[in-house]
Amino acid sequence: MAERQVRVKNTGLRGVTVADTKISYIDGEKGILIYRGYRIEELAQRSTFMETAFLLLNGHLPVESEIERFERQVVQAREIPAFIPDVLASLPKDADPMDVLQSCIPLLGAADQELYDESREANVRKAIRLIARVPAVVAAWNRIRNGQKPLPPDSTLPHAANFLWQLTGNKPDREVAHDFDVCLVLHADHTFNASTFACREVVSTNAHMYAGVTAGVGALSGPLHGGANARVMKMLLEVESQVKSKADIPGWVHNKVENGEKIMGMGHAVYKTIDPRAKILKEMSERLGKKMGRQQWYEYLTAIEEAGYKEFEARGKTNIRTNVDFYSGSVYSLMGIPTDVMTPVFAISRISGWCAHIIEEKFAEAQEKPALYRPEAEYVGHYCGAIGCTYEPMDSRG
Amino acid sequence: MAERQVRVKNTGLRGVTVADTKISYIDGEKGILIYRGYRIEELAQRSTFMETAFLLLNGHLPVESEIERFERQVVQAREIPAFIPDVLASLPKDADPMDVLQSCIPLLGAADQELYDESREANVRKAIRLIARVPAVVAAWNRIRNGQKPLPPDSTLPHAANFLWQLTGNKPDREVAHDFDVCLVLHADHTFNASTFACREVVSTNAHMYAGVTAGVGALSGPLHGGANARVMKMLLEVESQVKSKADIPGWVHNKVENGEKIMGMGHAVYKTIDPRAKILKEMSERLGKKMGRQQWYEYLTAIEEAGYKEFEARGKTNIRTNVDFYSGSVYSLMGIPTDVMTPVFAISRISGWCAHIIEEKFAEAQEKPALYRPEAEYVGHYCGAIGCTYEPMDSRG
Repeated sequence: MAERQVRVKNTGLRGVTVADTKISYIDGEKGILIYRGYRIEELAQRSTFMETAFLLLNGHLPVESEIERFERQVVQAREIPAFIPDVLASLPKDADPMDVLQSCIPLLGAADQELYDESREANVRKAIRLIARVPAVVAAWNRIRNGQKPLPPDSTLPHAANFLWQLTGNKPDREVAHDFDVCLVLHADHTFNASTFACREVVSTNAHMYAGVTAGVGALSGPLHGGANARVMKMLLEVESQVKSKADIPGWVHNKVENGEKIMGMGHAVYKTIDPRAKILKEMSERLGKKMGRQQWYEYLTAIEEAGYKEFEARGKTNIRTNVDFYSGSVYSLMGIPTDVMTPVFAISRISGWCAHIIEEKFAEAQEKPALYRPEAEYVGHYCGAIGCTYEPMDSRG
Repeated sequence: MAERQVRVKNTGLRGVTVADTKISYIDGEKGILIYRGYRIEELAQRSTFMETAFLLLNGHLPVESEIERFERQVVQAREIPAFIPDVLASLPKDADPMDVLQSCIPLLGAADQELYDESREANVRKAIRLIARVPAVVAAWNRIRNGQKPLPPDSTLPHAANFLWQLTGNKPDREVAHDFDVCLVLHADHTFNASTFACREVVSTNAHMYAGVTAGVGALSGPLHGGANARVMKMLLEVESQVKSKADIPGWVHNKVENGEKIMGMGHAVYKTIDPRAKILKEMSERLGKKMGRQQWYEYLTAIEEAGYKEFEARGKTNIRTNVDFYSGSVYSLMGIPTDVMTPVFAISRISGWCAHIIEEKFAEAQEKPALYRPEAEYVGHYCGAIGCTYEPMDSRG
């Protein structure tokens, strides 16, 4: 391959097109997100997470026999290997759920009989097992760290409801289960974000799917990426403790912005208008708040949003809008999900997109198969010409 | 930041300069590798792995008080958290050592009191603990999977010797310990290779060092990256079983190349001439083979090398040369390192470079601080215009 020299230093590869993809598409100017041809609004309203995961992995919406088989495979794979709860029981109880999840992914791999089967079919089956088991690991750790026994999966419950059951020990009502399922649809994919790119980068070495997903979990754990929903929730609790009423919020936001601090959940690397997922979560936050008699969070959040837009616009920043993380923290909290489990919940959804991207990376058509990722860096360090610096004996140094 | 649109699709970012670095430099045409200004040949001959790790992390060669303190810190950090052997004991005995290592890195993080201290000083201390503990985890797993008890570190032994002791239960002689230390120097860094880039990509989200290193281990586990030394060893054992004598090797190589198969350990993404590390390992392979009365591997390898060059040159490929992996497998094998522990041994060395790169990524000077990595992809999938495809009800599909 003829090599072209390109310099895009210290830009985080923004604006650099590194591959073809058939999985998802974002128009950041217009606020459009598409999975495999379908608008996110359409999928949130009419599809389910199981169907969306099938779509992401297989490229088409399933017919009835396909979705039945897929759902059955996921249900059958929910049981995690027996040694994993033993491992979890050995860990320090204050271990962060994202670190624990990152640690368990390679172990799920070690227990996978098809770990080294690199056919496309085996990779899809591995994806199904990951989609089934990541929620089970998250739920098991949350119970074990609280001194509770992990709960077995309930094969009568659909995917989203089963997770909430395994996490909390309560079976959610139909509306909450449906809303959580919609949240999973909304977070399932988002093109080449940092965690997805990490997955693809790792498997470009021909590493197995589990090694790639483990890297994805690591990237998602970063506060600039998946940690944002939990940070919105922390901000919300901070606001609650600092203001007397909604009327104080514009002043609180003004001070924040004036001090150059960020408003969590506002602004996005890609969207220059409202994130289409945020609209759906906003409506859900309002509805669930009402249903549970806890409307204050929604009221505070909308007040922060409104005041934030005014403050940013006054400073000429007209394209800072609320993103997917702004309302999801309050929604998850109303569902009984602890703040530090919100990023793992992101992973429970994004695992579907990660696996789809890993399969795409592994099986791109021959002529477009990406090489192992190996960028270049410009050496700007200590240098003494082509022969290198003189290695001084220790007593001549300093 | 003004965004420039650049298309470098499906090239694995070859030839794309993504950042500045002060850590290492490669001239692939001339076969030069430099760490922080010093040629690899100079470091292999005169430095130690501890000194090289200090150099990579701190940017200068240590004076006596600095190296004494650094070595003391590493020795003191060798003991792994007590729950890790319990975790290892719970795992299936056939788990791959790289998967187990990948799983244990976040657990080392969970036990690190400074996990969330993001000062530079705390990151250097975390790096020291990782350099000390990665070998201990690798050794412990190898013993536990073989039904043996892990061995405690020996504080009287230097770094390389202590690993061989914890792995095998035998204290190596001075020559073997020194040679293994040189191997660690040789593998310590190699600019923006796939695993190092994975580490940097993950921490660009502000994820902690352990999350980044975990991704690095995953990328290194890929057969196109760190798995190559073990594959050379497998090739060598295959040759041994298939040929009667050295004289048969040119024919064996000819058949391989004629069939379009790769010769493991030959050719490199960056070097277009001999890999400077390969020269040092070749000499070591010869010397250790003689010392241990097992010269056949060296003889076979040199015969493969010679025949390979001829075959490739006859096909106009004059820049395929042996790389770092070609002789290292035989060297490690002579040291008593099992084939599937060879990639983990690579990690035991590269952890020093990974940590140096993670610190550089986290603390690049403000004006050159790289943004979170988020490349773009070109959507070439199913598309039905800006409104998206129509979501057909299930019974109208197919």
